[in-house]
Amino acid sequence: MPIAADAEIEITAFEWVPDFAKGYVRDIRPRWACEELGLPYRERLISAVSRPEWYYRDQPWGQVPHVRDGDISVFESGATLVHLGERGGQGSALLPASGQSRAAVLSWTFAAFNSVEPLLFEWVNVNLFAAREEWAKLRRPSLLSDLGKRLDRLEAALADREWLSGAFSIADIAMVTTLRGADDSSLIEERPALAAYYARGLARPGFQTALSDQLAAFSAAPTREPTGA
Amino acid sequence: MPIAADAEIEITAFEWVPDFAKGYVRDIRPRWACEELGLPYRERLISAVSRPEWYYRDQPWGQVPHVRDGDISVFESGATLVHLGERGGQGSALLPASGQSRAAVLSWTFAAFNSVEPLLFEWVNVNLFAAREEWAKLRRPSLLSDLGKRLDRLEAALADREWLSGAFSIADIAMVTTLRGADDSSLIEERPALAAYYARGLARPGFQTALSDQLAAFSAAPTREPTGA
Repeated sequence: MPIAADAEIEITAFEWVPDFAKGYVRDIRPRWACEELGLPYRERLISAVSRPEWYYRDQPWGQVPHVRDGDISVFESGATLVHLGERGGQGSALLPASGQSRAAVLSWTFAAFNSVEPLLFEWVNVNLFAAREEWAKLRRPSLLSDLGKRLDRLEAALADREWLSGAFSIADIAMVTTLRGADDSSLIEERPALAAYYARGLARPGFQTALSDQLAAFSAAPTREPTGA
Repeated sequence: MPIAADAEIEITAFEWVPDFAKGYVRDIRPRWACEELGLPYRERLISAVSRPEWYYRDQPWGQVPHVRDGDISVFESGATLVHLGERGGQGSALLPASGQSRAAVLSWTFAAFNSVEPLLFEWVNVNLFAAREEWAKLRRPSLLSDLGKRLDRLEAALADREWLSGAFSIADIAMVTTLRGADDSSLIEERPALAAYYARGLARPGFQTALSDQLAAFSAAPTREPTGA
Protein backbone atom coordinates (compact mmCIF):
# COMPACT_ATOMS: atom_id res chain seq x y z
CA MET A 1 0.00 0.00 0.00
CA PRO A 2 2.65 2.67 0.87
CA ILE A 3 4.04 2.70 -2.69
CA ALA A 4 2.75 5.90 -4.30
CA ALA A 5 4.22 7.66 -7.32
CA ASP A 6 3.90 11.11 -5.75
CA ALA A 7 5.28 10.21 -2.33
CA GLU A 8 7.83 12.51 -0.70
CA ILE A 9 10.06 9.59 0.24
CA GLU A 10 11.96 7.84 -2.53
CA ILE A 11 13.70 4.48 -2.06
CA THR A 12 16.32 3.41 -4.59
CA ALA A 13 16.36 -0.33 -5.34
CA PHE A 14 17.62 -2.57 -8.14
CA GLU A 15 15.47 -3.27 -11.19
CA TRP A 16 16.80 -6.82 -11.46
CA VAL A 17 19.06 -9.15 -9.45
CA PRO A 18 20.03 -12.84 -9.80
CA ASP A 19 17.62 -15.36 -8.26
CA PHE A 20 19.69 -15.98 -5.11
CA ALA A 21 19.42 -12.30 -4.19
CA LYS A 22 15.72 -11.84 -4.86
CA GLY A 23 13.96 -10.82 -1.66
CA TYR A 24 17.29 -10.31 0.13
CA VAL A 25 18.38 -6.92 -1.22
CA ARG A 26 18.79 -4.38 1.53
CA ASP A 27 16.17 -1.91 0.31
CA ILE A 28 13.84 -4.30 2.15
CA ARG A 29 14.88 -2.48 5.33
CA PRO A 30 13.54 1.04 4.57
CA ARG A 31 10.56 -0.54 2.72
CA TRP A 32 9.69 -2.44 5.91
CA ALA A 33 10.12 0.67 8.07
CA CYS A 34 7.80 2.64 5.76
CA GLU A 35 5.18 -0.12 6.06
CA GLU A 36 5.35 -0.10 9.85
CA LEU A 37 5.18 3.68 9.95
CA GLY A 38 2.44 3.94 7.32
CA LEU A 39 4.65 6.24 5.25
CA PRO A 40 4.09 6.22 1.50
CA TYR A 41 7.18 5.98 -0.71
CA ARG A 42 8.04 5.86 -4.39
CA GLU A 43 10.63 3.60 -5.99
CA ARG A 44 13.65 4.59 -8.07
CA LEU A 45 15.00 1.49 -9.78
CA ILE A 46 18.55 1.35 -11.11
CA SER A 47 20.60 -1.33 -12.82
CA ALA A 48 22.62 -3.61 -10.55
CA VAL A 49 24.49 -4.92 -13.60
CA SER A 50 25.83 -1.61 -14.86
CA ARG A 51 25.44 0.88 -12.04
CA PRO A 52 25.14 4.40 -13.34
CA GLU A 53 28.18 6.53 -12.51
CA TRP A 54 26.01 9.42 -11.28
CA TYR A 55 24.57 7.14 -8.61
CA TYR A 56 27.89 7.09 -6.72
CA ARG A 57 27.23 10.70 -5.77
CA ASP A 58 24.16 9.50 -3.84
CA GLN A 59 25.69 6.26 -2.57
CA PRO A 60 29.50 6.06 -2.39
CA TRP A 61 29.65 2.26 -2.87
CA GLY A 62 27.01 2.08 -5.63
CA GLN A 63 24.83 -0.08 -3.39
CA VAL A 64 21.16 0.11 -2.51
CA PRO A 65 19.21 1.38 -0.70
CA HIS A 66 19.42 5.12 -0.96
CA VAL A 67 16.58 7.14 0.54
CA ARG A 68 15.55 10.65 -0.46
CA ASP A 69 13.08 12.42 1.79
CA GLY A 70 12.25 15.81 0.36
CA ASP A 71 15.61 17.62 0.34
CA ILE A 72 17.33 15.01 2.48
CA SER A 73 19.57 12.28 1.06
CA VAL A 74 20.45 9.24 3.20
CA PHE A 75 22.54 6.16 2.40
CA GLU A 76 23.46 2.97 4.30
CA SER A 77 20.42 0.95 5.28
CA GLY A 78 21.18 1.54 8.98
CA ALA A 79 21.07 5.30 8.52
CA THR A 80 17.83 5.04 6.52
CA LEU A 81 16.27 3.18 9.47
CA VAL A 82 17.36 5.85 11.96
CA HIS A 83 16.17 8.61 9.64
CA LEU A 84 12.75 7.03 9.11
CA GLY A 85 12.44 6.15 12.80
CA GLU A 86 13.12 9.78 13.74
CA ARG A 87 10.76 11.07 11.07
CA GLY A 88 7.92 8.90 12.39
CA GLY A 89 4.57 8.40 10.72
CA GLN A 90 0.98 7.34 11.21
CA GLY A 91 1.92 3.86 12.39
CA SER A 92 3.82 2.58 15.40
CA ALA A 93 6.87 4.45 16.73
CA LEU A 94 10.05 2.65 15.76
CA LEU A 95 12.65 4.77 17.56
CA PRO A 96 11.84 6.35 20.94
CA ALA A 97 12.79 10.03 21.18
CA SER A 98 14.84 9.86 24.39
CA GLY A 99 15.89 7.99 27.49
CA GLN A 100 16.84 4.37 28.05
CA SER A 101 14.42 3.07 25.44
CA ARG A 102 16.13 5.16 22.73
CA ALA A 103 19.59 4.09 23.96
CA ALA A 104 18.58 0.41 23.87
CA VAL A 105 17.13 0.65 20.36
CA LEU A 106 20.28 2.39 19.08
CA SER A 107 22.50 -0.16 20.85
CA TRP A 108 20.69 -3.13 19.31
CA THR A 109 20.57 -1.46 15.90
CA PHE A 110 24.36 -1.09 15.86
CA ALA A 111 24.64 -4.63 17.28
CA ALA A 112 22.88 -5.95 14.18
CA PHE A 113 25.02 -3.90 11.79
CA ASN A 114 28.42 -4.25 13.44
CA SER A 115 28.38 -7.37 15.65
CA VAL A 116 26.14 -9.82 13.79
CA GLU A 117 26.05 -8.81 10.12
CA PRO A 118 29.84 -8.76 9.54
CA LEU A 119 30.00 -12.48 10.40
CA LEU A 120 27.04 -13.10 8.11
CA PHE A 121 28.64 -11.14 5.25
CA GLU A 122 31.53 -13.57 5.57
CA TRP A 123 29.13 -16.52 5.85
CA VAL A 124 27.32 -15.59 2.63
CA ASN A 125 30.66 -15.10 0.89
CA VAL A 126 31.95 -18.49 2.02
CA ASN A 127 28.72 -20.32 1.11
CA LEU A 128 27.75 -18.49 -2.04
CA PHE A 129 30.10 -16.10 -3.82
CA ALA A 130 33.35 -17.88 -2.97
CA ALA A 131 31.88 -21.36 -2.40
CA ARG A 132 34.23 -23.02 -4.89
CA GLU A 133 37.37 -21.39 -3.50
CA GLU A 134 39.69 -23.55 -1.44
CA TRP A 135 40.01 -20.88 1.27
CA ALA A 136 36.23 -20.77 1.67
CA LYS A 137 36.01 -24.53 2.24
CA LEU A 138 38.81 -24.34 4.82
CA ARG A 139 37.36 -21.25 6.55
CA ARG A 140 33.82 -22.59 6.87
CA PRO A 141 34.20 -24.66 10.10
CA SER A 142 35.82 -21.91 12.18
CA LEU A 143 33.40 -19.32 10.86
CA LEU A 144 30.46 -21.56 11.73
CA SER A 145 31.88 -21.82 15.24
CA ASP A 146 32.38 -18.03 15.58
CA LEU A 147 28.88 -17.40 14.32
CA GLY A 148 27.39 -20.01 16.64
CA LYS A 149 29.04 -18.41 19.67
CA ARG A 150 27.75 -14.98 18.70
CA LEU A 151 24.23 -16.32 18.18
CA ASP A 152 24.41 -18.15 21.54
CA ARG A 153 24.84 -14.75 23.19
CA LEU A 154 21.98 -13.31 21.18
CA GLU A 155 19.83 -16.30 22.25
CA ALA A 156 20.73 -15.59 25.90
CA ALA A 157 19.96 -11.88 25.54
CA LEU A 158 16.59 -12.57 23.90
CA ALA A 159 15.50 -15.15 26.50
CA ASP A 160 11.74 -14.57 26.69
CA ARG A 161 11.69 -11.09 25.19
CA GLU A 162 9.26 -10.49 22.38
CA TRP A 163 11.46 -7.85 20.70
CA LEU A 164 15.01 -6.66 21.35
CA SER A 165 13.94 -3.60 23.30
CA GLY A 166 10.37 -3.44 24.56
CA ALA A 167 8.15 -2.59 21.60
CA PHE A 168 9.00 -3.54 18.01
CA SER A 169 11.61 -1.05 16.69
CA ILE A 170 14.15 -0.33 13.96
CA ALA A 171 16.52 -2.63 15.89
CA ASP A 172 14.21 -5.56 15.08
CA ILE A 173 14.02 -4.60 11.40
CA ALA A 174 17.83 -4.51 11.42
CA MET A 175 18.31 -7.79 13.31
CA VAL A 176 15.62 -9.88 11.59
CA THR A 177 16.82 -8.86 8.12
CA THR A 178 20.42 -9.50 9.19
CA LEU A 179 19.55 -13.01 10.39
CA ARG A 180 18.17 -13.85 6.96
CA GLY A 181 21.82 -14.28 5.92
CA ALA A 182 21.82 -17.50 8.00
CA ASP A 183 18.58 -18.97 6.68
CA ASP A 184 20.47 -21.51 4.53
CA SER A 185 21.69 -23.13 7.76
CA SER A 186 20.27 -24.55 10.97
CA LEU A 187 21.93 -21.80 13.03
CA ILE A 188 18.61 -20.12 13.84
CA GLU A 189 16.35 -23.15 14.28
CA GLU A 190 18.84 -24.70 16.74
CA ARG A 191 18.20 -21.81 19.14
CA PRO A 192 14.59 -21.70 20.35
CA ALA A 193 14.35 -18.08 21.53
CA LEU A 194 16.11 -16.88 18.40
CA ALA A 195 13.94 -19.07 16.14
CA ALA A 196 10.74 -17.75 17.75
CA TYR A 197 11.96 -14.15 17.54
CA TYR A 198 12.93 -14.58 13.89
CA ALA A 199 9.56 -16.15 13.02
CA ARG A 200 7.71 -13.31 14.79
CA GLY A 201 9.65 -10.78 12.75
CA LEU A 202 9.06 -12.46 9.40
CA ALA A 203 5.34 -12.88 10.18
CA ARG A 204 4.74 -9.15 10.51
CA PRO A 205 2.55 -7.79 7.70
CA GLY A 206 5.03 -4.95 7.19
CA PHE A 207 7.80 -7.42 6.35
CA GLN A 208 5.55 -9.47 4.08
CA THR A 209 4.46 -6.40 2.10
CA ALA A 210 8.03 -5.10 1.83
CA LEU A 211 9.16 -8.49 0.56
CA SER A 212 6.43 -8.79 -2.05
CA ASP A 213 7.03 -5.21 -3.20
CA GLN A 214 10.73 -5.86 -3.70
CA LEU A 215 9.88 -8.99 -5.70
CA ALA A 216 7.21 -7.16 -7.71
CA ALA A 217 9.79 -4.63 -8.91
CA PHE A 218 11.88 -7.49 -10.33
CA SER A 219 8.87 -9.03 -12.07
CA ALA A 220 8.04 -5.74 -13.72
CA ALA A 221 11.55 -5.30 -15.11
CA PRO A 222 12.59 -6.76 -18.46
CA THR A 223 14.71 -9.85 -17.92
CA ARG A 224 18.45 -9.21 -17.74
CA GLU A 225 19.43 -12.82 -17.88
CA PRO A 226 21.66 -13.86 -20.75
CA THR A 227 19.48 -14.81 -23.70
CA GLY A 228 22.13 -15.28 -26.37
CA ALA A 229 22.63 -18.59 -28.15
CA MET B 1 41.58 15.98 31.24
CA PRO B 2 37.96 14.68 30.97
CA ILE B 3 38.71 11.67 33.21
CA ALA B 4 37.13 12.49 36.58
CA ALA B 5 36.18 9.99 39.28
CA ASP B 6 32.83 11.67 39.99
CA ALA B 7 31.76 12.13 36.35
CA GLU B 8 28.23 11.23 35.35
CA ILE B 9 29.44 9.34 32.26
CA GLU B 10 31.17 6.01 32.81
CA ILE B 11 33.12 4.22 30.06
CA THR B 12 33.90 0.54 30.51
CA ALA B 13 37.29 -0.53 29.14
CA PHE B 14 39.70 -3.42 29.68
CA GLU B 15 42.27 -3.32 32.47
CA TRP B 16 44.83 -5.17 30.33
CA VAL B 17 45.13 -6.43 26.74
CA PRO B 18 47.97 -8.06 24.77
CA ASP B 19 50.48 -5.68 23.17
CA PHE B 20 49.01 -5.91 19.65
CA ALA B 21 45.68 -4.56 20.94
CA LYS B 22 47.04 -1.72 23.06
CA GLY B 23 45.69 1.57 21.77
CA TYR B 24 43.28 -0.20 19.41
CA VAL B 25 40.50 -1.24 21.81
CA ARG B 26 37.19 0.28 20.83
CA ASP B 27 36.62 2.28 24.03
CA ILE B 28 38.87 4.77 22.24
CA ARG B 29 35.75 5.85 20.33
CA PRO B 30 33.63 7.19 23.22
CA ARG B 31 36.80 8.45 24.95
CA TRP B 32 37.58 10.51 21.83
CA ALA B 33 34.00 11.79 21.60
CA CYS B 34 34.13 12.89 25.26
CA GLU B 35 37.39 14.76 24.57
CA GLU B 36 35.90 16.60 21.58
CA LEU B 37 32.76 17.44 23.54
CA GLY B 38 34.61 18.43 26.71
CA LEU B 39 32.55 15.89 28.68
CA PRO B 40 34.18 14.42 31.78
CA TYR B 41 33.96 10.64 32.20
CA ARG B 42 35.07 8.01 34.68
CA GLU B 43 36.52 4.61 33.78
CA ARG B 44 35.26 1.18 34.78
CA LEU B 45 37.96 -1.37 34.01
CA ILE B 46 37.15 -5.06 33.64
CA SER B 47 39.21 -8.12 32.84
CA ALA B 48 39.48 -9.06 29.16
CA VAL B 49 40.96 -12.41 30.14
CA SER B 50 38.10 -13.62 32.34
CA ARG B 51 35.14 -11.40 31.58
CA PRO B 52 32.77 -11.21 34.52
CA GLU B 53 29.48 -12.96 33.85
CA TRP B 54 27.46 -10.00 35.19
CA TYR B 55 28.97 -7.83 32.47
CA TYR B 56 26.97 -9.65 29.78
CA ARG B 57 23.85 -7.95 31.15
CA ASP B 58 25.39 -4.60 30.17
CA GLN B 59 27.02 -5.80 26.95
CA PRO B 60 25.60 -8.94 25.31
CA TRP B 61 28.90 -9.97 23.66
CA GLY B 62 31.12 -9.21 26.66
CA GLN B 63 32.98 -6.59 24.63
CA VAL B 64 33.98 -3.03 25.39
CA PRO B 65 33.02 -0.23 25.38
CA HIS B 66 29.89 0.10 27.43
CA VAL B 67 28.77 3.61 28.37
CA ARG B 68 26.62 4.56 31.33
CA ASP B 69 25.29 8.10 31.42
CA GLY B 70 23.31 8.62 34.61
CA ASP B 71 20.44 6.12 34.29
CA ILE B 72 21.16 5.32 30.65
CA SER B 73 23.07 2.24 29.52
CA VAL B 74 24.47 2.08 25.97
CA PHE B 75 26.52 -0.61 24.23
CA GLU B 76 28.13 -0.95 20.78
CA SER B 77 30.68 1.76 20.10
CA GLY B 78 28.52 3.15 17.26
CA ALA B 79 25.57 3.64 19.60
CA THR B 80 27.82 5.29 22.20
CA LEU B 81 28.93 7.80 19.55
CA VAL B 82 25.33 8.62 18.59
CA HIS B 83 24.34 8.90 22.26
CA LEU B 84 27.24 11.22 23.11
CA GLY B 85 26.72 13.24 19.92
CA GLU B 86 23.07 13.77 20.82
CA ARG B 87 23.92 14.62 24.42
CA GLY B 88 26.38 17.28 23.33
CA GLY B 89 28.75 19.15 25.61
CA GLN B 90 30.88 22.24 25.99
CA GLY B 91 33.00 21.46 22.95
CA SER B 92 32.21 21.18 19.25
CA ALA B 93 28.93 19.65 18.08
CA LEU B 94 29.53 16.15 16.72
CA LEU B 95 26.03 15.27 15.46
CA PRO B 96 23.79 17.97 13.97
CA ALA B 97 20.23 17.94 15.32
CA SER B 98 18.37 17.82 12.00
CA GLY B 99 18.38 18.23 8.25
CA GLN B 100 20.83 17.11 5.60
CA SER B 101 23.84 17.57 7.85
CA ARG B 102 22.39 15.10 10.37
CA ALA B 103 21.48 12.64 7.61
CA ALA B 104 24.99 12.81 6.14
CA VAL B 105 26.67 12.26 9.51
CA LEU B 106 24.43 9.25 10.24
CA SER B 107 25.03 7.86 6.73
CA TRP B 108 28.81 8.07 7.06
CA THR B 109 28.72 6.71 10.59
CA PHE B 110 26.92 3.57 9.41
CA ALA B 111 29.23 3.46 6.38
CA ALA B 112 32.20 3.10 8.74
CA PHE B 113 30.50 0.42 10.86
CA ASN B 114 28.81 -1.63 8.15
CA SER B 115 30.63 -0.99 4.84
CA VAL B 116 34.27 -0.50 5.84
CA GLU B 117 34.83 -2.13 9.23
CA PRO B 118 33.49 -5.61 8.31
CA LEU B 119 36.23 -5.95 5.65
CA LEU B 120 38.79 -4.74 8.20
CA PHE B 121 37.55 -7.22 10.82
CA GLU B 122 38.31 -9.92 8.26
CA TRP B 123 41.65 -8.26 7.40
CA VAL B 124 42.78 -8.24 11.04
CA ASN B 125 41.66 -11.85 11.41
CA VAL B 126 43.60 -12.94 8.30
CA ASN B 127 46.75 -11.02 9.27
CA LEU B 128 46.77 -11.52 13.01
CA PHE B 129 44.48 -14.00 14.75
CA ALA B 130 44.35 -16.59 11.96
CA ALA B 131 47.64 -15.65 10.27
CA ARG B 132 49.01 -19.19 10.49
CA GLU B 133 45.88 -20.84 9.07
CA GLU B 134 46.01 -22.09 5.51
CA TRP B 135 42.64 -20.49 4.68
CA ALA B 136 43.91 -17.11 5.81
CA LYS B 137 46.95 -17.28 3.52
CA LEU B 138 44.72 -18.26 0.60
CA ARG B 139 42.09 -15.62 1.39
CA ARG B 140 44.48 -12.72 1.75
CA PRO B 141 44.89 -11.71 -1.94
CA SER B 142 41.15 -11.53 -2.75
CA LEU B 143 40.44 -9.72 0.52
CA LEU B 144 43.17 -7.19 -0.24
CA SER B 145 41.53 -6.61 -3.61
CA ASP B 146 38.02 -6.21 -2.09
CA LEU B 147 39.35 -3.83 0.51
CA GLY B 148 41.28 -1.83 -2.08
CA LYS B 149 38.16 -1.37 -4.21
CA ARG B 150 36.14 -0.18 -1.22
CA LEU B 151 38.88 2.26 -0.20
CA ASP B 152 39.10 3.54 -3.81
CA ARG B 153 35.47 4.59 -3.49
CA LEU B 154 36.16 6.22 -0.13
CA GLU B 155 39.11 8.05 -1.71
CA ALA B 156 36.82 9.31 -4.50
CA ALA B 157 34.15 10.41 -2.01
CA LEU B 158 36.68 12.26 0.15
CA ALA B 159 38.32 14.08 -2.80
CA ASP B 160 39.26 17.42 -1.24
CA ARG B 161 36.91 17.29 1.73
CA GLU B 162 38.43 17.99 5.12
CA TRP B 163 35.95 15.73 6.95
CA LEU B 164 33.29 13.28 5.75
CA SER B 165 30.43 15.71 6.23
CA GLY B 166 31.25 19.39 6.65
CA ALA B 167 32.51 19.87 10.21
CA PHE B 168 34.30 17.14 12.18
CA SER B 169 31.67 14.70 13.50
CA ILE B 170 31.05 11.28 15.05
CA ALA B 171 31.32 9.90 11.49
CA ASP B 172 35.00 10.91 11.45
CA ILE B 173 35.63 9.33 14.86
CA ALA B 174 34.03 6.16 13.49
CA MET B 175 35.90 6.16 10.16
CA VAL B 176 39.35 7.18 11.40
CA THR B 177 39.30 4.56 14.17
CA THR B 178 38.00 1.98 11.68
CA LEU B 179 40.85 2.73 9.26
CA ARG B 180 43.37 1.96 11.99
CA GLY B 181 42.66 -1.72 11.21
CA ALA B 182 44.59 -1.18 7.95
CA ASP B 183 47.61 0.59 9.41
CA ASP B 184 49.77 -2.53 9.07
CA SER B 185 49.47 -2.17 5.28
CA SER B 186 50.04 0.45 2.59
CA LEU B 187 46.29 0.60 1.80
CA ILE B 188 45.92 4.07 3.26
CA GLU B 189 49.20 5.68 2.21
CA GLU B 190 48.59 4.60 -1.42
CA ARG B 191 45.53 6.87 -1.55
CA PRO B 192 46.45 10.55 -1.10
CA ALA B 193 43.06 11.96 -0.04
CA LEU B 194 42.52 9.08 2.36
CA ALA B 195 46.05 9.35 3.76
CA ALA B 196 45.65 13.10 4.37
CA TYR B 197 42.21 12.58 5.96
CA TYR B 198 43.53 9.80 8.19
CA ALA B 199 46.51 11.92 9.29
CA ARG B 200 44.21 14.87 10.08
CA GLY B 201 42.07 12.63 12.26
CA LEU B 202 44.96 11.10 14.19
CA ALA B 203 46.49 14.55 14.75
CA ARG B 204 43.48 15.87 16.65
CA PRO B 205 44.27 16.49 20.32
CA GLY B 206 41.08 14.62 21.25
CA PHE B 207 42.35 11.44 19.62
CA GLN B 208 45.81 11.81 21.14
CA THR B 209 44.40 12.23 24.64
CA ALA B 210 41.97 9.32 24.21
CA LEU B 211 44.84 7.13 23.03
CA SER B 212 47.15 8.04 25.89
CA ASP B 213 44.34 7.57 28.41
CA GLN B 214 43.58 4.08 27.09
CA LEU B 215 47.28 3.21 27.33
CA ALA B 216 47.56 4.73 30.82
CA ALA B 217 44.86 2.39 32.10
CA PHE B 218 46.94 -0.59 30.95
CA SER B 219 50.10 0.77 32.60
CA ALA B 220 48.29 1.18 35.89
CA ALA B 221 47.03 -2.41 35.89
CA PRO B 222 49.06 -5.27 37.31
CA THR B 223 50.63 -7.26 34.51
CA ARG B 224 48.57 -10.20 33.28
CA GLU B 225 51.28 -11.67 31.15
CA PRO B 226 52.41 -15.17 32.01
CA THR B 227 55.17 -14.94 34.60
CA GLY B 228 55.67 -18.62 35.38
CA ALA B 229 59.06 -20.29 34.97
